[in-house]
Amino acid sequence: MMLWKETAPGVWKASIGDVAEEQQQGLTPLKCIGASPQVEAMEKLPHAALPLELASIVIHESAGRRIVSVPLQQAEKLYGMGLQFMRMNQRGRTRYLRVNSDPKQDTGETHAPVPFYISDSGYGLLVDSSRIITIHAGSTLRQEDTAAIAVRDRNTDKAWQATLTASRIEIVLPAEGADVYVFAGPAPADVVRRYNLFCGGGILPPKWGLGFWHRVPKMFHATEALDEALAFRHRDFPCDCIGLEPGWHSKSYPVTNEWSEERFPDPAQFVSAMQEEGFRVNLWEHPYISPDSRIYLQLKALSGSHTVWGGIAPDYSLPDARALYMQQHQQEHVDIGIAGYKLDECDGSELTNHSWMFPAHATFPSGMDGEQMRQLYGLMFQKMTADLYRNTGLRTYGLVRASNAAASSMPYVLYSDLYDHKQFIRAISNASFCGLLWTPEVRKAQNAEDWVRRMQSVCFSPMAMLNAWGDGTKPWSYPEVEPIVRHYIKLRMRLLPYFYTAFALYREEGTPPFRAMPLVMTAAEITQAEAHSQQAQTVGEILNTSDAAYGKRTIREWDDQYMIGDSLLAAPMVAGESEREVLLPSGIWYGFETGERYTGGQVIRVKPGLERIPLFVREGEIIPLMAERSHMPKCGERVQLELVHFGPVPGTGRLYDDDGETFDYEKGEAIWCNLAVTQQAEGAWCGEISAAARQTELYMYDDIRWRFAQVHI
Amino acid sequence: MMLWKETAPGVWKASIGDVAEEQQQGLTPLKCIGASPQVEAMEKLPHAALPLELASIVIHESAGRRIVSVPLQQAEKLYGMGLQFMRMNQRGRTRYLRVNSDPKQDTGETHAPVPFYISDSGYGLLVDSSRIITIHAGSTLRQEDTAAIAVRDRNTDKAWQATLTASRIEIVLPAEGADVYVFAGPAPADVVRRYNLFCGGGILPPKWGLGFWHRVPKMFHATEALDEALAFRHRDFPCDCIGLEPGWHSKSYPVTNEWSEERFPDPAQFVSAMQEEGFRVNLWEHPYISPDSRIYLQLKALSGSHTVWGGIAPDYSLPDARALYMQQHQQEHVDIGIAGYKLDECDGSELTNHSWMFPAHATFPSGMDGEQMRQLYGLMFQKMTADLYRNTGLRTYGLVRASNAAASSMPYVLYSDLYDHKQFIRAISNASFCGLLWTPEVRKAQNAEDWVRRMQSVCFSPMAMLNAWGDGTKPWSYPEVEPIVRHYIKLRMRLLPYFYTAFALYREEGTPPFRAMPLVMTAAEITQAEAHSQQAQTVGEILNTSDAAYGKRTIREWDDQYMIGDSLLAAPMVAGESEREVLLPSGIWYGFETGERYTGGQVIRVKPGLERIPLFVREGEIIPLMAERSHMPKCGERVQLELVHFGPVPGTGRLYDDDGETFDYEKGEAIWCNLAVTQQAEGAWCGEISAAARQTELYMYDDIRWRFAQVHI
Repeated sequence: MMLWKETAPGVWKASIGDVAEEQQQGLTPLKCIGASPQVEAMEKLPHAALPLELASIVIHESAGRRIVSVPLQQAEKLYGMGLQFMRMNQRGRTRYLRVNSDPKQDTGETHAPVPFYISDSGYGLLVDSSRIITIHAGSTLRQEDTAAIAVRDRNTDKAWQATLTASRIEIVLPAEGADVYVFAGPAPADVVRRYNLFCGGGILPPKWGLGFWHRVPKMFHATEALDEALAFRHRDFPCDCIGLEPGWHSKSYPVTNEWSEERFPDPAQFVSAMQEEGFRVNLWEHPYISPDSRIYLQLKALSGSHTVWGGIAPDYSLPDARALYMQQHQQEHVDIGIAGYKLDECDGSELTNHSWMFPAHATFPSGMDGEQMRQLYGLMFQKMTADLYRNTGLRTYGLVRASNAAASSMPYVLYSDLYDHKQFIRAISNASFCGLLWTPEVRKAQNAEDWVRRMQSVCFSPMAMLNAWGDGTKPWSYPEVEPIVRHYIKLRMRLLPYFYTAFALYREEGTPPFRAMPLVMTAAEITQAEAHSQQAQTVGEILNTSDAAYGKRTIREWDDQYMIGDSLLAAPMVAGESEREVLLPSGIWYGFETGERYTGGQVIRVKPGLERIPLFVREGEIIPLMAERSHMPKCGERVQLELVHFGPVPGTGRLYDDDGETFDYEKGEAIWCNLAVTQQAEGAWCGEISAAARQTELYMYDDIRWRFAQVHI
Repeated sequence: MMLWKETAPGVWKASIGDVAEEQQQGLTPLKCIGASPQVEAMEKLPHAALPLELASIVIHESAGRRIVSVPLQQAEKLYGMGLQFMRMNQRGRTRYLRVNSDPKQDTGETHAPVPFYISDSGYGLLVDSSRIITIHAGSTLRQEDTAAIAVRDRNTDKAWQATLTASRIEIVLPAEGADVYVFAGPAPADVVRRYNLFCGGGILPPKWGLGFWHRVPKMFHATEALDEALAFRHRDFPCDCIGLEPGWHSKSYPVTNEWSEERFPDPAQFVSAMQEEGFRVNLWEHPYISPDSRIYLQLKALSGSHTVWGGIAPDYSLPDARALYMQQHQQEHVDIGIAGYKLDECDGSELTNHSWMFPAHATFPSGMDGEQMRQLYGLMFQKMTADLYRNTGLRTYGLVRASNAAASSMPYVLYSDLYDHKQFIRAISNASFCGLLWTPEVRKAQNAEDWVRRMQSVCFSPMAMLNAWGDGTKPWSYPEVEPIVRHYIKLRMRLLPYFYTAFALYREEGTPPFRAMPLVMTAAEITQAEAHSQQAQTVGEILNTSDAAYGKRTIREWDDQYMIGDSLLAAPMVAGESEREVLLPSGIWYGFETGERYTGGQVIRVKPGLERIPLFVREGEIIPLMAERSHMPKCGERVQLELVHFGPVPGTGRLYDDDGETFDYEKGEAIWCNLAVTQQAEGAWCGEISAAARQTELYMYDDIRWRFAQVHI
């Protein structure tokens, strides 16, 4: 029997099993991040009845395990469950939500295995646990439910499916139990908003975080790093942040988190020289502490039973361990102006390319075990470093390779050693279901085409980054396409006011800045649009005895395109493609750079050249653009703002601004402007910025220019 | 504290935890197969002290789990742990021994996850459990052991390794405990022999099982199957067994195990027509019973909580369920002459290509759960069908997709939907460590070269088979290479006396008929031979940011060649290779078909044309060959035997024979001949067959011809 209690507007909680014990034994994702639900914002969300009775969610014992059983409708789709790379709709799959640094198979394992799903019927469910949760997302059929389904003959019946349509979700809880939360909609996007707001709201990065990032090769000296940074200025490529990779430490793999005297003899001077040129510095690190670290001996007693690469794995659920880590990072890095971190390898799983992680049976001084520590390690590092910057009053933005539930308020973007471009694009969509951000980082390319396509994708993602740590690439590595790459990095910069506003909506309303199509269109709308497709959808099971002996489903998921904010739709291309289909929501759309006009509510086909990523803007929208810059303006500096209005119809929009660097926005030091364009007479347009903006002025902009009724920028 | 007791010669057992409860709750692999240790044969194995003190194997609790901790020497190598596809030496890896039908990553999961390893120091260890066992095979380092290892800097120290050299194996036992067995050597091959004999000895297939197999396409009618079989005769391709794939059932996926009246109107007549032409018939099936089966309702009450493809999953740990299954199979198949089965999809794991398996939390009437049933399902089917044929007095030989420990006495060969040719070759070696047999079945090819290379490999494996179920291929599918394929299928047939003798040694002495190199040469011998290699061994960590960010080890494992019996060494080629290295054990060797002479104890390089698979025979050996045949002689029929002696030195050999079909060999109806070749005078050789053979005569051979001092056949 599950006892449900509404703990926040539209959020119900049931505690199952000996959760008190679980609370003692280890942190859960929600407890680890510890953010307060944004109740006020949640109250503004539409009220909605749940699409299922809470009483229909039952719990039962099966083979010594506690199973949460949730009814499932015939056509229901299930999204989320973390940073999934292989598919968007997880219906019919068993998702084994274990953190895995090398998630090459479609098992559910991933860098960020979030036990939260969204049903397109309009609700979401979270299991708040530090353990591996298995969600049978409609992949299991009990005997008593089997009678209701058609048992088909694979050989003679084309409708046979390798995975049958089940009528329940079965969630396997850990032995000690867990808290289960249900989130209301009504729409899937509202479920996601409610989840994000419940977890503390979305993160608002500093403005520079939305500029271009470059990570220099490992083992670079300070002078090499500075030279490489300056090359961006000389070659007219915008760049805001330089990341240092292994080599800045005195020792690494395991790490000291202390500077190499040989390669960085004067770190403070180096950081300040970089700042002088408009660059922030981000530091790579991982969790495993070298015997050469000055805090090694103190941390050793606070560490797990097993080592990694010879380094200790500290138990950061202990306040003393956190204090040591934070103090070291404060003194060594934050105090001299380091802007943030890349938190690598906190996603270790021993079942990878190499075995290097502490085992599940490792013990930690707090009583947590290796399984729990692995599931939460990424969150712990996010939380410690986020707190560090919050204490200084400056925002950070960085990279992390492991996450879990409750991470929407963390200033971190996920990345991976994987490199399939289609998977990288899909992950932009899938991250949006679970309060995650993801960068399809560029490292290298097969050829110039691949290079351009990857650069275009990353410029329309939460972090536009080239990670040259192992390949030594630079944005101009393929000279024949250098202008295209420069163009998109600059366009990314110019769109800062637009991106920043999208992130402000993430923070305040919980709306992901990058959104998968099921958060934009209903299933019915998508089906209707598909019906207008130029080519029939291929659906079926294609047999391949050496790769897909049970057949391969070919249902189009629209997981290769996504919305950015409310006005732009990106549909990246991958190398080898000369054309693609795009699902356009209803309304009139324009090619953002081409001006071509499209009627939405259908699937269109585009054939962009290599110099274009398909980008679409909705008619009536107002896109704010910043003047071209090599890096973000400093706090207080002002730049020109261009407000571009699209199409021959009136429109409205919003623009957010604040100082871009501090947390003063939380004290009201921020501004929301309403933008409106109206038509006075034929061809005579009028643009208005709301009174508030005129009174207090924007933080970063002056010289506001309007462009009306455009069809492209 | 582990209490060890010697339970068989050179085998010690310790029971850990509440094994009595485990015995009640579910079967273990050893209990499931229930074979008696071949104590007499074990006593003939060399006596050896264990290379480690049993007292050094300790058990401790860690994070609520029972861990068996075994000391590990610096250079020790660890083999086995089931049908591993990705590597041979498992040292440094965590092996998660879960049955998995789609084992595409190097996690330890596989079709046959045997919790048994062999250390090259000369002992083996088995955990006899129905649960998933995790073996940290030197992949974990405890804090207290870390001091002893060198903590290196990845960036500056070339000796840095992603996986450190640990000093213990850590085995995670199931909550209820398990029986642990340690097997003595002295050599790794003796460990394997002892393990196989302890499990009942190796299987001796019927002679026809060692002929060529062809599986016809799914949905074939009886007439189509017969026509395809006859095509082998018309085209002069030997073939002994035709397999029927999905379509012979009245319903399949799930199955009825009853004949389709449409496609097989008179099954008995079909089988007898096939037998007339010298073909045995093998039937594909899987475990999940269709509602259309006549025994469905009876089995339903004896089945698990969850269904698969709409079919029930019977609990065959229950005698009643076994009786229903066996009775049905007896009447429907065995009584009309069906020769055996292909037991498909008993290796289901829900984390695959498609989710179709019952979950780990499924319950079964016996009290077993889904995890246990999945781990043992393959063994249960092997045992039931083996018993069925034993009851009839006729041997069977077939295919199974799941296995576990204790399977050496089962008449089954493993196969997979995977298709990487190098992995397929490696699995021949890896199967030999754990009492398993494996076929690198051929299904289709990229091109004629690939076709030939795969056909060559499969002809030198435990089952020479073309599986055309989904691709409709035939041995003559690539006409340009048809003669090469025919040649090797015929050579396979001619080698029957040799293969059969190798299997007899498997049965009686536990020696695998196909053997990995570490069961043939010591680590020191291999190192010495490598020192004589024509090219230096490349050892190191090659970095690739998109595929091997922690580097890729390039140690040559010699997992692409293997011994067949005591005299032949096969070193298959794969498409795209024009030459390869071969590690030859000491002694003089000849190219079996080329006559080239090689000095062993070194690595040689060969450049065979497409028409040759590198095959080597040791000087002095005597290879028995049968006269060319299109299929195996019937019981009682006699054929010519050729005894080919190699090189200009005296030699000895052995030859086994029996009726080839029944179990009468267990009653002494069998013959072992000692073969000897001596030199009377320069060029005058004399061959002798031991008295026993002359007295009782061989079962299948007359007209024995000798060829002496040959350099090729």
